Amino acid sequence: MIIVMKPGATREHIEAVSERLVELGFKTHPIYGQEKTVIGAIGDKKALSSEAIINLPGVEKIVPIMKPYKLVSRELKETPTMVRVGGVPVGGRGLVVMAGPCAVESEEQLLSAARAVKAAGAQILRGGAFKPRTSPYAFQGLEEEGLKMLARVREEVGLPFVTEAVDTRDVALVAEYADAIQIGARNMQNFRLLKEAGATGKPILLKRGLAATIEEWLMAAEYILDSGNPNVILCERGIRTFETATRFTLDLAAVAVVKENSHLPVIVDPSHGTGSWRLVLPMARAAVAAGADGLIIEVHPDPARALCDGPQSLHPETFDRLMGELAPVALAVGRGLAPTGVFLEKAAVLAGGK
Amino acid sequence: MIIVMKPGATREHIEAVSERLVELGFKTHPIYGQEKTVIGAIGDKKALSSEAIINLPGVEKIVPIMKPYKLVSRELKETPTMVRVGGVPVGGRGLVVMAGPCAVESEEQLLSAARAVKAAGAQILRGGAFKPRTSPYAFQGLEEEGLKMLARVREEVGLPFVTEAVDTRDVALVAEYADAIQIGARNMQNFRLLKEAGATGKPILLKRGLAATIEEWLMAAEYILDSGNPNVILCERGIRTFETATRFTLDLAAVAVVKENSHLPVIVDPSHGTGSWRLVLPMARAAVAAGADGLIIEVHPDPARALCDGPQSLHPETFDRLMGELAPVALAVGRGLAPTGVFLEKAAVLAGGK
Amino acid sequence: MIIVMKPGATREHIEAVSERLVELGFKTHPIYGQEKTVIGAIGDKKALSSEAIINLPGVEKIVPIMKPYKLVSRELKETPTMVRVGGVPVGGRGLVVMAGPCAVESEEQLLSAARAVKAAGAQILRGGAFKPRTSPYAFQGLEEEGLKMLARVREEVGLPFVTEAVDTRDVALVAEYADAIQIGARNMQNFRLLKEAGATGKPILLKRGLAATIEEWLMAAEYILDSGNPNVILCERGIRTFETATRFTLDLAAVAVVKENSHLPVIVDPSHGTGSWRLVLPMARAAVAAGADGLIIEVHPDPARALCDGPQSLHPETFDRLMGELAPVALAVGRGLAPTGVFLEKAAVLAGGK
Amino acid sequence: MIIVMKPGATREHIEAVSERLVELGFKTHPIYGQEKTVIGAIGDKKALSSEAIINLPGVEKIVPIMKPYKLVSRELKETPTMVRVGGVPVGGRGLVVMAGPCAVESEEQLLSAARAVKAAGAQILRGGAFKPRTSPYAFQGLEEEGLKMLARVREEVGLPFVTEAVDTRDVALVAEYADAIQIGARNMQNFRLLKEAGATGKPILLKRGLAATIEEWLMAAEYILDSGNPNVILCERGIRTFETATRFTLDLAAVAVVKENSHLPVIVDPSHGTGSWRLVLPMARAAVAAGADGLIIEVHPDPARALCDGPQSLHPETFDRLMGELAPVALAVGRGLAPTGVFLEKAAVLAGGK
Repeated sequence: MIIVMKPGATREHIEAVSERLVELGFKTHPIYGQEKTVIGAIGDKKALSSEAIINLPGVEKIVPIMKPYKLVSRELKETPTMVRVGGVPVGGRGLVVMAGPCAVESEEQLLSAARAVKAAGAQILRGGAFKPRTSPYAFQGLEEEGLKMLARVREEVGLPFVTEAVDTRDVALVAEYADAIQIGARNMQNFRLLKEAGATGKPILLKRGLAATIEEWLMAAEYILDSGNPNVILCERGIRTFETATRFTLDLAAVAVVKENSHLPVIVDPSHGTGSWRLVLPMARAAVAAGADGLIIEVHPDPARALCDGPQSLHPETFDRLMGELAPVALAVGRGLAPTGVFLEKAAVLAGGK
Repeated sequence: MIIVMKPGATREHIEAVSERLVELGFKTHPIYGQEKTVIGAIGDKKALSSEAIINLPGVEKIVPIMKPYKLVSRELKETPTMVRVGGVPVGGRGLVVMAGPCAVESEEQLLSAARAVKAAGAQILRGGAFKPRTSPYAFQGLEEEGLKMLARVREEVGLPFVTEAVDTRDVALVAEYADAIQIGARNMQNFRLLKEAGATGKPILLKRGLAATIEEWLMAAEYILDSGNPNVILCERGIRTFETATRFTLDLAAVAVVKENSHLPVIVDPSHGTGSWRLVLPMARAAVAAGADGLIIEVHPDPARALCDGPQSLHPETFDRLMGELAPVALAVGRGLAPTGVFLEKAAVLAGGK
Repeated sequence: MIIVMKPGATREHIEAVSERLVELGFKTHPIYGQEKTVIGAIGDKKALSSEAIINLPGVEKIVPIMKPYKLVSRELKETPTMVRVGGVPVGGRGLVVMAGPCAVESEEQLLSAARAVKAAGAQILRGGAFKPRTSPYAFQGLEEEGLKMLARVREEVGLPFVTEAVDTRDVALVAEYADAIQIGARNMQNFRLLKEAGATGKPILLKRGLAATIEEWLMAAEYILDSGNPNVILCERGIRTFETATRFTLDLAAVAVVKENSHLPVIVDPSHGTGSWRLVLPMARAAVAAGADGLIIEVHPDPARALCDGPQSLHPETFDRLMGELAPVALAVGRGLAPTGVFLEKAAVLAGGK
Repeated sequence: MIIVMKPGATREHIEAVSERLVELGFKTHPIYGQEKTVIGAIGDKKALSSEAIINLPGVEKIVPIMKPYKLVSRELKETPTMVRVGGVPVGGRGLVVMAGPCAVESEEQLLSAARAVKAAGAQILRGGAFKPRTSPYAFQGLEEEGLKMLARVREEVGLPFVTEAVDTRDVALVAEYADAIQIGARNMQNFRLLKEAGATGKPILLKRGLAATIEEWLMAAEYILDSGNPNVILCERGIRTFETATRFTLDLAAVAVVKENSHLPVIVDPSHGTGSWRLVLPMARAAVAAGADGLIIEVHPDPARALCDGPQSLHPETFDRLMGELAPVALAVGRGLAPTGVFLEKAAVLAGGK
């Protein structure tokens, strides 16, 4: 931690700051510049210590030197973490695609979607049973009934599933059914939910908050690791900016920044990240090229009749085309696409055809 | 709802859209322009209906005509709503100041802060017992012990208090003690928490999310009113922008926009909105001049030793000066400042002194 | 300047950085922490030096200690600068209101607007002769003819005027007529225009760019002061954020931040800052309460027929009401409102009436 | 254009709006809903007409139906435009890479960079002779001397070049030397510069403003096409958001949105878009996968001693590696990478090696 003193700071100010730092357990190293004095403080133990200094007379600003997160950092653990969702490894050499409807609407709808996405090569099913909706008048999800449908479809189709928990009181219930628990963007800083979900030991899919910096996102993951659960998959899903042509601005550089600073796997949600199914295809390709470990994509058997997120949901045929387009991009960045032979076949056809 | 068709939309496309609209219960009114056709749809019943149309062939975009909120809107209820927090009316002619520490740290700290803010003219005490913190390593609040301290200090000093609930499981407990329940910015779209807090019937202080549009903020309030609780106080506390000189960007125009569109009272939090105690004074004055019904301000007996938000907390003496500066501004916009005679006295002195 | 080394930086890395710093003319002070080493570098002479270090092996980040601006800073000059626009002092105790139409459309329109704003108490006339318009199909201004009208109306009505220059080639022409030259938000980082306008010696009204940080805005002012012209008035006019209910987000905290860091006067433009005439009134009051030295407001004799910015232009009667509302707020923050007796009269009436 | 009336709008209000619309040359089609009336107006001729309506009593909002741009739109011209820069086609099947130093510093530096980027497969040289710098104390470019060096290096190395013009007064000079003129992000709405550069007939590389919506960016291009010059290449280079881990937020979805709405070619600048050379590689790959027609990348023979943008400049060896990584991604999305055999060779090696 570096304390920068104001130009007019007196010797008394500097000494008072040094004393307070020593009182807080730091060693101090003042550097006297021509116009300003800075004090280096060694022993950065407590998050609150900068707050204990900033209000002292003569202090201009505090510059943190250490990153605020530890458990999630690549400095602590250099090798990438691989998280297994019902047997599917996320964060390894293979690219993992999670797909399915925004919301579980009925068993028929879910089954139809699950079969289609599996046939196209997805390895994990997604589908919401508890839905956080901006309007109280919108469809709020089938709740436990939806979880049961997800479980039955998992048996039938053979895909593990990820689904969202939106309330600490539902976490145990969701954990009972799901292979992985999603924490939605609007709950990224719902710290009690992070702890509760973390405590289940289940893999956690942690979406980035729509106004969260990458550092805050990693701090949210830190909450889960700190609760004893190392199985966190990060998910970039777009941030809020001034641009209105897209629903959010998909921040693909975040994938590379996360890779540099953390050992956790990171996937991308081009459906929410763009809000428009037409844009899902190019952005899915771009996410893979940027180095994402996987994708999560909304697919609905009949997008025009979806109860939620229809405009950004892919028709199964379009999803199939997307998977075909992804295969050569995945190969181009040195990644296999899942264990099925379909993709390699597709990739071969595409590569040959070009 | 207006459906704008693409330039190349065919007669079949237009008819298919019209049929779907009729199927959904709308009356349709097509307008044929030189390059584009638009279809007016009357009977805007369901939030999801636009999603049911946008994917049909030939559709370019959907333009909503009705606002998505109803219960909170000034169109429904023209007279301003006044919310009583332990006897103190918020939303009337008087300006209400809520003040106190970020977090309850000890009974001494709280009592000292409460006495100071009361003496300076605050009418409601604030103080966090459950704290949502960005870092899992930061102080997380005294929880129920903190609530008990707040209740005891209320008795001792005679100020009702507002405190935050961060988990649905704590809402009943918080409601047992508090005069008003705060929903923090990071929980503005924690819809289950909104419903649970709303169901207590207690006044709800609803902070604006840091990436929430004004419309989304009003939709969050709609959740509470829809749960049967009309006692909502909105609180602008700064939004996230690219500017880094301040912690957030305090959006004071939001106060005026809310006043135009809703009957609910709206207050401003210049402490979180700026992140720096030096900026709290000018922004508190500006908030009152913009038409806010009140302010919520962090005051700590010893900001340099605060466990939370020290940099933005006012020392009691500075708070006293702030209250003195607010009085003439409140008068200038036709507002009284609370029932005590202190303010009018101060205002008179200041007015005379200038 | 503080150089933070990565956790894994070797002694060789640290020495190489130190050597490079010495080569660049710095004295170095390494501090060895438990996990990281930081190097303090004294003698912060060149803006480019941080770039010369950041790429060296083992360097994590560079933390600047000195502010990048000098001439505009309050550290250099503690007393506020007062800028005279045709005899009207901006930045003193009095609040200055500049008003007039977005664009000069005709001499009648301009004369009518000028008379109205003067009668209501404005001291400086505004009006655009060169208009930067988003669309090539929109009205682009009357150019020199407009400047001539402004000059004639100045004679007739007795108000100095400020008008925008949008091209280096027009600066001399604009300077020939105008009392102050406006640099628009979209040209805030048109550095050649800044230098050219600065070189005229005329007062410069420098609008904040819509994506400019306060620091970048002050750096733009630094260009003008560096060209030898100290007469800069800063103007906050709203920044671009995700909120769409207002045209821009008026950042009033910027007023206070500028006051803390610079000696230059700062005014506020609530017309562009909100985009809606209804919001101009509360935000004008708020700007004054926040400590602004003045306001610039769009007034049009017939807003519904304005060729530019009609939605945010005030009708003269509304402007008159605004000025009446401003007077008591100005008094409340210890400011007079211009030299005419009209305001004090209004203030007295309003104060008495409340 | 759709005019939405307020709920309380009277028959007189509706008639007054209709009359004004007819007066402005529109045909009107009112639709009477249960709570609101909307008026369809056919004949959307002038950009200013919405402003002429919005202030009329009873009007709530105006909804534009037509896009504000015409010449750049895909609705007008369905086939993609190909722009030739000194013989190199941009916007065709081949991916075009422009590379070189941020600023021309000396002929040796430029020559060395040019040879390196050509050897690695770049087809166009970039290099700034006029530099817009945030600080007046930073290196401002070699101006005409720099242009001459660029011209000599073009002869020597055989690469056409693109360089920036920052002032209308320099446009003719730049046009005399350059194969394409760059308009920088900070000048995207310097409309006079757009017109002047457009009038030269030279290809224009139009960077997106850092706070510009995609629509505003296309409107800026419209200025150039409206000046009679169809040779515009759009360049996404990152927008300003709250995220500070990267210099800007590279908005790759903008590439796909532009492709959908315009016939103009679009390239990506991952150097400015991220601000860090480490992120240039993944984002360059992602840009190509998203469908960009090319890239513009900063390469410096000795980034640690660059006078400008060192942190984001690639060392020639890193650039060479980047080109090798791009080749298979380009192939994967059906694009060739330039005419030299180097890439195909590299692609073959890489494809085989993986």
